[in-house]
Amino acid sequence: MIETLSSLIDGYGGRERESRTSITNGVRMNIKGFSYSAVAASIKYQGRLDLGLIYSEKPCVTAGVFTTNQVKAAPVLIDIKRLKEGRSQAILVNSGCANACTGLEGKKIGLATSSLVSKALSIPDDMVLLSSTGVIGQQLDISAFEQHMDELVNGLSSENFGKVAEAIMTTDTVVKTAYASIFIGGKEVKLAGMAKGSGMIMPNMATMLAFITTDVQISFPELHKSLLFGVERTFNRITIDGDTSTNDMVLVMASGKADNPWIDGDSPGNQLIFQDALEDVLKDLALQLIADGEGATKMITIRVCGAKENCEAEKVARTIATSNLVKTAFFGEDANWGRIMAAIGRSGVRIYEERVDIAFGDVPIVKNGLFLGEQAEKEATEILKGKQFSVCIDLKDGAGCEEVCTCDFSVDYVKINADYRS
Amino acid sequence: MIETLSSLIDGYGGRERESRTSITNGVRMNIKGFSYSAVAASIKYQGRLDLGLIYSEKPCVTAGVFTTNQVKAAPVLIDIKRLKEGRSQAILVNSGCANACTGLEGKKIGLATSSLVSKALSIPDDMVLLSSTGVIGQQLDISAFEQHMDELVNGLSSENFGKVAEAIMTTDTVVKTAYASIFIGGKEVKLAGMAKGSGMIMPNMATMLAFITTDVQISFPELHKSLLFGVERTFNRITIDGDTSTNDMVLVMASGKADNPWIDGDSPGNQLIFQDALEDVLKDLALQLIADGEGATKMITIRVCGAKENCEAEKVARTIATSNLVKTAFFGEDANWGRIMAAIGRSGVRIYEERVDIAFGDVPIVKNGLFLGEQAEKEATEILKGKQFSVCIDLKDGAGCEEVCTCDFSVDYVKINADYRS
Repeated sequence: MIETLSSLIDGYGGRERESRTSITNGVRMNIKGFSYSAVAASIKYQGRLDLGLIYSEKPCVTAGVFTTNQVKAAPVLIDIKRLKEGRSQAILVNSGCANACTGLEGKKIGLATSSLVSKALSIPDDMVLLSSTGVIGQQLDISAFEQHMDELVNGLSSENFGKVAEAIMTTDTVVKTAYASIFIGGKEVKLAGMAKGSGMIMPNMATMLAFITTDVQISFPELHKSLLFGVERTFNRITIDGDTSTNDMVLVMASGKADNPWIDGDSPGNQLIFQDALEDVLKDLALQLIADGEGATKMITIRVCGAKENCEAEKVARTIATSNLVKTAFFGEDANWGRIMAAIGRSGVRIYEERVDIAFGDVPIVKNGLFLGEQAEKEATEILKGKQFSVCIDLKDGAGCEEVCTCDFSVDYVKINADYRS
Repeated sequence: MIETLSSLIDGYGGRERESRTSITNGVRMNIKGFSYSAVAASIKYQGRLDLGLIYSEKPCVTAGVFTTNQVKAAPVLIDIKRLKEGRSQAILVNSGCANACTGLEGKKIGLATSSLVSKALSIPDDMVLLSSTGVIGQQLDISAFEQHMDELVNGLSSENFGKVAEAIMTTDTVVKTAYASIFIGGKEVKLAGMAKGSGMIMPNMATMLAFITTDVQISFPELHKSLLFGVERTFNRITIDGDTSTNDMVLVMASGKADNPWIDGDSPGNQLIFQDALEDVLKDLALQLIADGEGATKMITIRVCGAKENCEAEKVARTIATSNLVKTAFFGEDANWGRIMAAIGRSGVRIYEERVDIAFGDVPIVKNGLFLGEQAEKEATEILKGKQFSVCIDLKDGAGCEEVCTCDFSVDYVKINADYRS
């Protein structure tokens, strides 16, 4: 269980890799029942895709996970309400404006954009889900939606998945997509996911936007369970800057077109097969988020074992993974284990300094709380020069293990975030 | 009560200012009973003061507050034990090496350095307090202490206060000292404080090193109480990077030479007069720490009122004050109130978005959760161009108020911390 994130990272070389679920990034996949479209609507910038639509011919079983931030954007509030029945038929998503902290007016405008979609597609209003990302506190310009709705709907095609993935980007530097296919009851089932996000990435969901379309036949409780399980083990195990956004969500729409035997409460085996594939897609997206973290130059897994409980291991891992001092040392390729010890010590978990072991990759640098010397440091520094590595901490106080994936903290992070709105 | 930090900040112009306690920075003050010395012992760097000694002719009433980090440096562990009786006669302090994560060997070396002092000064071993700051995980080089102990002791003079303040600096760019004098029972009582620290500054004590010498006549419980109260309201209300060190401490030594009426449990009035003066000194030092925060270009007070309880106001203020996104926006002079709303929303405190007011200085920018428009933003941006300003948040849900002082987060912070050990 624990190895999942790190085993992926260890073998993670960007876009090319293989897995049991035949994840083949970069290959356009056609998910039965869905079409996609994106246009440049000049919501914030001119001439770039910023308005996307995901459409299913028929109502889909749909599950969502939303930000834990109490300040929730209008589209989040609308979607939470609309997803009570676990069904939807379209997702309208824009970048450039978050429609957060916009009050009743923001909700009205959100609902108006969904009406535009429902009219154009002749589907009920409440079958449209909304999603926005961008600057907080500005009202959406409804005219941008009005002017481009026809173009958006006319552009719907099974081949435009990647265009929507592009339209949701903000400070992202690369498009993030992931695919999987599996066989359930002899039928091929496909999943295609897209995500955006490179700052404001933090646990307890929140994080960023991700949309997954799949043709699996599944009932809502099983889809929802699979999503919660997957998000907990992927997006909730990464951190870029410790902040949590007002807008973020993961939605998964299942069209049922794969014609596999229905996955419901009576088919735990098939549910697990699907759940694993979904987790792989989410994981792949999560790692792409870390790799594209604002200003990030390195991807680091913090693996803590030997804690009394898994939750304590997680607490320690998270304290290290969010420490600015640790993250700047990673950027500087400095095997500064002292900052890691200091983070362990302030994590709030009872630890025994004289038991703690620390290794960078497979190079031990601290044993029983003590530095192993300059040769060890020299070798550890070589590990830090890599683009991906892990830091392993053994507290030697129990069997609790957990890991969190983070990135380094660079000069560019500050530059990006000091300049973001200007 | 609430106004203390901010009222100081609002009137804070660096080294020149006046207060009721006649704080006169930059003027050398002579605290009766004490002498000071510092030498360049080449502990890490050549040719800079890095070893200091504070000495009292007679045993002093002494109180201390220490890091809350579970990973405590050797000098911290030694001092906690030695201060059980509330008495000391000397503080030996070095920069360049933290003597943290150094195990039993580190404790032995620490004790050996204190023996050098006790022999040279002919005082009992356990009357010597130790303090170290610098890189974690390296053993102290005892020979540096042996070679320079005579020079250090011979240099003791009432005029060398500033030299010790210089010897404790690490990444600090300026010497930090503060003074106060008050009258108790017709007798003048003086306090002189020094501090170091510019990163790893974070609440719950921890923070940094500060030493205060005073000639007040006071018993231990009252001195300890005054110190705890003062630290809680000053050093525990500032944050630079959210990290908490393994080494940090505030020590106050009272020589009793002022000959004021004894302050003990029966003199609450005089205790308060002293406590106020001590708080002023601590506050002054705390603000100097913020102003010298690693890479900091601005000093910002986050003031939260209208919370249900003070502790909830503090939680919200702290979440804002430690958000990298908020702090980078300050650096970019961007009135990005959306990031402040997002921080409020994830603070863990129940809030009502539709009630929240935000102002930069005296410029309201959000009213009842909504943006007040571009003119407000324009005016707020002018406030952000200043070197010192406050951000006021009214949650309108109660009478709880609190404030936390922070600095902006600059490109230089990352540079300093990526390069610190190299």
